[in-house]
Amino acid sequence: MSTAEFALSCPLPIERYPQVLLAHGGGGKLMHGLIRDVFLKTFGGQPSGSPHDATVLEVGGQRIAFSTDSFVVRPIFFPGGDLGSLAVHGTINDLAMAGARPMWLSASFIIEEGLPLEVLGRIVTSMEQAASSANVTIVTGDTKVVEKGKGDSLFITSAGIGILESNQRIHPQSVRAGDAVLVSGDLGRHGMAVMSVREGLEFESAIESDSAPLAEVVLALLAAKIEVHCLRDITRGGLTAVLNEIAEAAQLGIVVDEAQIPVRDDVKAACEILGLDPLQVACEGRFAAFIPEKHVSRALEIMKSFPAAGGARRIGLVLADPDPLVSIRSSIGARRILDMPTGEQLPRIC
Amino acid sequence: MSTAEFALSCPLPIERYPQVLLAHGGGGKLMHGLIRDVFLKTFGGQPSGSPHDATVLEVGGQRIAFSTDSFVVRPIFFPGGDLGSLAVHGTINDLAMAGARPMWLSASFIIEEGLPLEVLGRIVTSMEQAASSANVTIVTGDTKVVEKGKGDSLFITSAGIGILESNQRIHPQSVRAGDAVLVSGDLGRHGMAVMSVREGLEFESAIESDSAPLAEVVLALLAAKIEVHCLRDITRGGLTAVLNEIAEAAQLGIVVDEAQIPVRDDVKAACEILGLDPLQVACEGRFAAFIPEKHVSRALEIMKSFPAAGGARRIGLVLADPDPLVSIRSSIGARRILDMPTGEQLPRIC
Repeated sequence: MSTAEFALSCPLPIERYPQVLLAHGGGGKLMHGLIRDVFLKTFGGQPSGSPHDATVLEVGGQRIAFSTDSFVVRPIFFPGGDLGSLAVHGTINDLAMAGARPMWLSASFIIEEGLPLEVLGRIVTSMEQAASSANVTIVTGDTKVVEKGKGDSLFITSAGIGILESNQRIHPQSVRAGDAVLVSGDLGRHGMAVMSVREGLEFESAIESDSAPLAEVVLALLAAKIEVHCLRDITRGGLTAVLNEIAEAAQLGIVVDEAQIPVRDDVKAACEILGLDPLQVACEGRFAAFIPEKHVSRALEIMKSFPAAGGARRIGLVLADPDPLVSIRSSIGARRILDMPTGEQLPRIC
Repeated sequence: MSTAEFALSCPLPIERYPQVLLAHGGGGKLMHGLIRDVFLKTFGGQPSGSPHDATVLEVGGQRIAFSTDSFVVRPIFFPGGDLGSLAVHGTINDLAMAGARPMWLSASFIIEEGLPLEVLGRIVTSMEQAASSANVTIVTGDTKVVEKGKGDSLFITSAGIGILESNQRIHPQSVRAGDAVLVSGDLGRHGMAVMSVREGLEFESAIESDSAPLAEVVLALLAAKIEVHCLRDITRGGLTAVLNEIAEAAQLGIVVDEAQIPVRDDVKAACEILGLDPLQVACEGRFAAFIPEKHVSRALEIMKSFPAAGGARRIGLVLADPDPLVSIRSSIGARRILDMPTGEQLPRIC
């Protein structure tokens, strides 16, 4: 598929979808169409850019990263995490993906009338624990309350500021043909932890979310002078969305080996029951890294020294092909296209 | 009332109100209790501090301000503004109140399924216009979609970064006995613009919101070397909440002259119909300034040179009294206490 075809395959939301659908928030084609045709068109920015990464700005000669995310996950408590820790990890990870050391967070709460204060207290405590164990400080915030039936217990929006200590330009456009594609661990656990609770699936032991802060791992790679061309946390739309976004921005093809992509058996089983593709399921503590071949073994060694990236693997390769296609080689050698997901599969996972 | 009595008069939310009420978002006692007992207790910070101001941080030797606000106003379009421009002005003004030049904003959208994209487009366009006319740039964002009935068309959370160009410490604790209290214009228009639409009140001409960016005025005061002890935008809880917050933080009494407080006749009339006190009604383009007497006439001259502060007035005085009481002198000379409002009057005004 050429770039022009890719653009065409992103439906024009206003013409084809006059109202916002759940899929517009799902991390796939519809969301990318909405971001491109409504937000980027109005606010400016490169349609081929990466609107979900932190933006890099300069203050007093120092480069900083700035990012925000809203969190609307349901249920707000799930195995391995909750809305509060997720809101902290999500923004920390966006900053980390720009190579920044996360420093300060804001936290803004939209509370539905009737929320027990005890529940709010647990979420706020979880945020504070997640922040302090990642060495970031929540420094400012806001509270709004909406009437019963006009919200859904609690939404949290966090924004964050990080400091760039390295001069590397970590960006999709820094990706080069021949770069290896690494992932920091097994995929799909966060999405399936949430969906299993929501759908009432029971397994021998609960699937726990992978929600975790990733800055420490990234900063260690940079401190070791690993050339890091691009980083992307694997959230909505899963690995499939990440690879398609990077391929599109870099204008290069990517191929991955199915046998190398780590997915746990319980996650595979849950995906099968729900008819989902694990490669489209969100994580909240995993990232993909695009790194030149010569640095791969050292990078994997460093990543594996952190619990959050203990399952790091090399899963694929950036091709010299200027067609931004993502393909996957199955274990029997067949090759198929990994197309950008539509985003309908997993609403309110983060 | 002593400080201890003031603290007692802020209900302990968890014990007395086990569930979140609309009033917890109203800018009054309940909200302050929630912030103090849940957020500040967990995240740290001074209970006597000012949780709604921007936080001042240091990056590369440069002081920056960082702030966030969620906006849930209903209806999303009202005379004189809309949710989009409000989200931009609100965060700009929080930064300005720290004396910062607002530079960059984030915008995070929580969209209820079914929102017409045309409406979203109008709000986003309004944000962009408000940002560009205030010389700030929206640099990062996020989009989440929730199911129909789990949101209310659109909530926007903005965060912002500003740069402090002046060395003045603009803070409630810099307020001194003898400081004059100025307001930048007539009060209560934003709240009554929104309430009039919501309650179907009809006047000869619609009351228009005062929603406006205030940074230009503040930066002009600072550039002219006016000693600015404290600034506070007059939002939820109105002038009454602002004065009580500052009195409490500064541990000083404040007295204001009713006859000097500018409130338009149509706003007074609308307040009377709805049983509201105009001094408790939110503005979104007005601020209070605490300035030493010797700089008042020059400060008023500068403020009046800007359309956003054309109606600036001196309305009162900070007393040497260490009891943090706010009182108001009526035109016939009677003096009464302006107590912190409970916050129940005006839900979802911003």
